Amino acid sequence: MKIEAVDFFYLSMPEVYDIGDGSQDACLVRVRAGGLTGWGECEAAPLPSIAAFVCPMSHSACKPVRASVLGRSIDDVADIRRIGDLVRDQSLDLLQADHTLSGIDTALWDLLGKRLGEPVYRLLGYETAYPKMPYASMLFGDTPSETYDKGRRTRAKGFRAAKFGWGPIGLNGVEADIEQFKAAREGLGEDGTLLIDIGTVWRDDVDAASKRVKALREVRATWLEEPFVSGALEAYKQLSLRAAPVKLAGGEGCHNFHMARHMIDYAAIGYVQIDAGRIGGLSVAKRVADYAHARGVTYVNHTFTSHLQLSASLQPFAGLEDDVIAEYPVEPKSLAIELTANHIELDEDGFIHVPDAPGLGMTVNVARLKDYLVEVEIRVKGQVIYQTPDLD
Amino acid sequence: MKIEAVDFFYLSMPEVYDIGDGSQDACLVRVRAGGLTGWGECEAAPLPSIAAFVCPMSHSACKPVRASVLGRSIDDVADIRRIGDLVRDQSLDLLQADHTLSGIDTALWDLLGKRLGEPVYRLLGYETAYPKMPYASMLFGDTPSETYDKGRRTRAKGFRAAKFGWGPIGLNGVEADIEQFKAAREGLGEDGTLLIDIGTVWRDDVDAASKRVKALREVRATWLEEPFVSGALEAYKQLSLRAAPVKLAGGEGCHNFHMARHMIDYAAIGYVQIDAGRIGGLSVAKRVADYAHARGVTYVNHTFTSHLQLSASLQPFAGLEDDVIAEYPVEPKSLAIELTANHIELDEDGFIHVPDAPGLGMTVNVARLKDYLVEVEIRVKGQVIYQTPDLD
Repeated sequence: MKIEAVDFFYLSMPEVYDIGDGSQDACLVRVRAGGLTGWGECEAAPLPSIAAFVCPMSHSACKPVRASVLGRSIDDVADIRRIGDLVRDQSLDLLQADHTLSGIDTALWDLLGKRLGEPVYRLLGYETAYPKMPYASMLFGDTPSETYDKGRRTRAKGFRAAKFGWGPIGLNGVEADIEQFKAAREGLGEDGTLLIDIGTVWRDDVDAASKRVKALREVRATWLEEPFVSGALEAYKQLSLRAAPVKLAGGEGCHNFHMARHMIDYAAIGYVQIDAGRIGGLSVAKRVADYAHARGVTYVNHTFTSHLQLSASLQPFAGLEDDVIAEYPVEPKSLAIELTANHIELDEDGFIHVPDAPGLGMTVNVARLKDYLVEVEIRVKGQVIYQTPDLD
Repeated sequence: MKIEAVDFFYLSMPEVYDIGDGSQDACLVRVRAGGLTGWGECEAAPLPSIAAFVCPMSHSACKPVRASVLGRSIDDVADIRRIGDLVRDQSLDLLQADHTLSGIDTALWDLLGKRLGEPVYRLLGYETAYPKMPYASMLFGDTPSETYDKGRRTRAKGFRAAKFGWGPIGLNGVEADIEQFKAAREGLGEDGTLLIDIGTVWRDDVDAASKRVKALREVRATWLEEPFVSGALEAYKQLSLRAAPVKLAGGEGCHNFHMARHMIDYAAIGYVQIDAGRIGGLSVAKRVADYAHARGVTYVNHTFTSHLQLSASLQPFAGLEDDVIAEYPVEPKSLAIELTANHIELDEDGFIHVPDAPGLGMTVNVARLKDYLVEVEIRVKGQVIYQTPDLD
């Protein structure tokens, strides 16, 4: 099959608020080949990602992403990897390219799975997809009592695990943070898996982070996520020594295999969290899963958008039986919910299952998305080089 | 002063060829505050970089770069650093943001230097700017005999050093590469400083690189540049052990301080090459220069465009007397030459000098640039969110 069309769609809620909620817009990618359609998402600012797909060439190592994709053959798994390598070579100096590639790569796996009648995880080399224990991913409440209530409600919905993210953490001093950690544990209950996410608020300040470590141990947090920016490897390593048995988690900012490897090799993290919508797609995410597995680091998906992206995020570690924790967004905006007609729901034991269907196993709800479509037009030298394609 | 306007200009040669020449287009940034104008360049694909400046917000950590720049105060050095930190926080998930910020940060230093009547290197903390020995940066010829001629011509122009870059290297086997290395040495003469640039062609294949090491020693190459992609730290480290006394050089792909630090901490490079137009501007480049200096690694600019960018690239290490090698593009396209009215020329001893004038000390040749201006218009939801500004 030849790749006949790669179309980008910028979708958005009518209003986007200045809050830490990545489900307010979406960058959806549709790939067509051989009469089939594959879908993927870039977890990325839609407009720069579209620009990286269509921009004029700057030089031989700074080409638009489409130069490496359109018209290429897509018949087997090796073709997808070849396209990814070509993008990384030909768009080496185009920083946004990794985010743009992510949605394309994912859509190619979806398309190939449909063509071969196999779920993506099997094409990635796994025999079996094991159940995952989803954690409810949400923000801390503004007050400890709100956080407590969030924990209670999460258990009531059937979740065994919850992650509380940044919000007020780091803004009001050590004692205030500790109260929040305690409220999260109390709300979730003694037997729940408690995960704490700091959202890089301490940048690379090991001392600021260390002051919260004792409290994190006392509330038996399973992990402390993103105390620092992804690149602060030495800070991670130092904190990991002080935080044990609480493990560090990080990696969502990685936009290529090497960055994830650095976190595993040098940052002493216990959990590597990969956003398949940023790192270059499922091909790269699977490579990280293999590398992490070989080194005793647990792989976790990073997912904050739709169930199309949730399915995509689960495939790269579907076959790793012991890597059981999975991120599951619980407070997404209607766009993220309505993006697919079907959803990945919790079973009665609180587990989720990768769809056992060809490709990603998700049906994009095309008719419903028209309401969210953001019309974009880009003109260069008077020529239209991008215009929102028909969504049909 | 308040930052009143930040304007991006996409400039390009009439034709852009599929060759490794980064001077074929330019992304020029003009900042206005307090009646003054500062100029900077992003070494980046212009269209995605513009999109990252103007795009709608996706969420609180994925804002357009302009949200952190327009209307901010710019009165001293701390203000510039504060703006950079704000961009990195508020555009954390917008990958292209570092490239976009680079031109803005540089323009802010130029503007502040003009305001305070000081060259940028003094604002960066250096008392003195030492002369640098420019190397002629160019591609290998298609044949050894072409490479030889290039070396001869370079010496005739007064250069003491030359770097030969990728071109045919890695494409025709070990023996062919060795012939090229020898031709470069012969052309340059026994006393010239010979630098070899591989342009990441071996990705992370240490064995492929190792096969050329003996020849590199024999031709007394000072450095072997970018045998691998920037992230392949372990491959760099392994090769550095085999290559001594030839040192490894790399880092041009780094788009933040942490990535450069990783190359210094983990890759065992001898020279860290920073593109101030990619890493987040002069603020971040200077931080890398300080870090490298403290660890015995030599700082070198990476510059492949105009003399505005050349001046910007030299400022962060202007005061490091021993870090004497500097990249100097010798075959730029007319756009890169005409971008400034004045130029940084070799003195009779083959050295160059950072302009001893306020700001970057370069005069942008506004009238001449109109011929290179690429008209761009971006519409979102029917509204024009970017249109090429007036260049006057």
